[in-house]
Amino acid sequence: MKIIRGIKAMQGSSGKCKKKGLRIGLVPTMGALHEGHLSLVRSCRRDNDITVVSIFVNPIQFGPKEDLKRYPRPAGKDAMLCREAGVDYIFYPSARDMYPPDFKTGVSVRELGKGLCGASRPGHFDGVTTVVAKLFNIVRPDNAYFGQKDAQQAVIIKRMAKDLDFGINIKVLPIVREKDGLALSSRNIYLDRVGRAEALCLSAALRLAKDLIISGQRDTRAVIRAMSALISSAKNADIEYIKIVDPNNLKEIERINDECLICLAVRIGKTRLIDNVVIKRSGLKK
Amino acid sequence: MKIIRGIKAMQGSSGKCKKKGLRIGLVPTMGALHEGHLSLVRSCRRDNDITVVSIFVNPIQFGPKEDLKRYPRPAGKDAMLCREAGVDYIFYPSARDMYPPDFKTGVSVRELGKGLCGASRPGHFDGVTTVVAKLFNIVRPDNAYFGQKDAQQAVIIKRMAKDLDFGINIKVLPIVREKDGLALSSRNIYLDRVGRAEALCLSAALRLAKDLIISGQRDTRAVIRAMSALISSAKNADIEYIKIVDPNNLKEIERINDECLICLAVRIGKTRLIDNVVIKRSGLKK
Repeated sequence: MKIIRGIKAMQGSSGKCKKKGLRIGLVPTMGALHEGHLSLVRSCRRDNDITVVSIFVNPIQFGPKEDLKRYPRPAGKDAMLCREAGVDYIFYPSARDMYPPDFKTGVSVRELGKGLCGASRPGHFDGVTTVVAKLFNIVRPDNAYFGQKDAQQAVIIKRMAKDLDFGINIKVLPIVREKDGLALSSRNIYLDRVGRAEALCLSAALRLAKDLIISGQRDTRAVIRAMSALISSAKNADIEYIKIVDPNNLKEIERINDECLICLAVRIGKTRLIDNVVIKRSGLKK
Repeated sequence: MKIIRGIKAMQGSSGKCKKKGLRIGLVPTMGALHEGHLSLVRSCRRDNDITVVSIFVNPIQFGPKEDLKRYPRPAGKDAMLCREAGVDYIFYPSARDMYPPDFKTGVSVRELGKGLCGASRPGHFDGVTTVVAKLFNIVRPDNAYFGQKDAQQAVIIKRMAKDLDFGINIKVLPIVREKDGLALSSRNIYLDRVGRAEALCLSAALRLAKDLIISGQRDTRAVIRAMSALISSAKNADIEYIKIVDPNNLKEIERINDECLICLAVRIGKTRLIDNVVIKRSGLKK
């Protein structure tokens, strides 16, 4: 496994692989790798000859009051996990190289980034699409892997890749959960013992929603009311949003007649957590 | 010479060339080709194994009151000129393929697109950077060729290519002029006989500015005053702007101590024309 810091060096290595006809897969991450990331790496290795994991805590996707400084950066452990997982290259650039002082360009998928998480994190998704566009150009992968955990991000990146004709397949893989249901997240380490227990309210609310819908409930307001009540029973839980949307365009829906995405953001104390579930059309048959 | 309409087909042809190790050059145009474009093509052919000319009148870079419908589209003549010039591929996509109904992504070099032409054409340069990002991804050239005639565009595209790590060399070639000084432009055909004569005021004003500066004038306001007086002597000329800026960041300067870019936009009747000249540092020595 090779760790590459320079942008040109990564472009060079990637270019050489492509000239040999090797298929390249990219797993873009902010490090603090967990089983969710590793499931992306495994999938990437199955599909490609070369697996590149980028590790970059992207400053421009953090708001001024967010956890950029505090975000975990266990570089040594991440490298070890990548090596064990059979990663070929870690691309590990510096913020200064990625955003030199005269940097001025932004990539935006406009309206898709405004609702849901974008409402409380203005500019967040523009930061994501901008860095992902850069990573796509630096690595030029055939396939790129993202987690369904960040459902809105996945929709936005698919849109960007298509709109800008990157010619890269965007693969979105299922959420990986702890045995008790908590969705894996690099931010889970912020939770104390009580918070960890209360954080189960997110996945529990999603299970409840799924059960209600499968049992025939089609009114999204009723589903959201039930979820809200469940979450509010956790003392330190503060709901940022609970929405049921069309998974293709992220528009809110009132009646569930087709595939839908239920997603939520909840603060447990100071820790902001997100989770979601997709209800497939087949789940609506009664 | 091959004319390709489909995005995937162009990506496929381009990919095949790259696999053979051929160097690809791209000349992005809106068609209505003139000697300015052809000078780009010749330069492209010298540097590359494969020359691709894209012809696409990009709707998203036109304002609602601009000349999108009226813009000349002499497809047959353009194809003939390309063939004669030794072009390998014309990429000639449809607006519907480039911007399907669910298209949502934009690329922006923010502040660089706000002044100069951007002041009267809001969103114009975002339209340009978005389509150029798409063309870069579709053709994946090693080199791309632009005319200095569109000075602001050239600065913005260089910035975008660097910021987003396209790994594409941006080559900016000198303005090609008629013998009497008029900068070649696809929009010159809008001019009637009187307008054609009056249009000479743009290049004349730039020559005057250059002479003044070379003779020692360092005060940009004085230079602009003289240019303005000259242009105002043409009856149907309406100055949109005359600016003297730093060619790197397009910021206005007051005193000329280093290389500078003098640029202007003038309406001759209804026809909006632009022109510019760069005064090199060496021209400032007395």
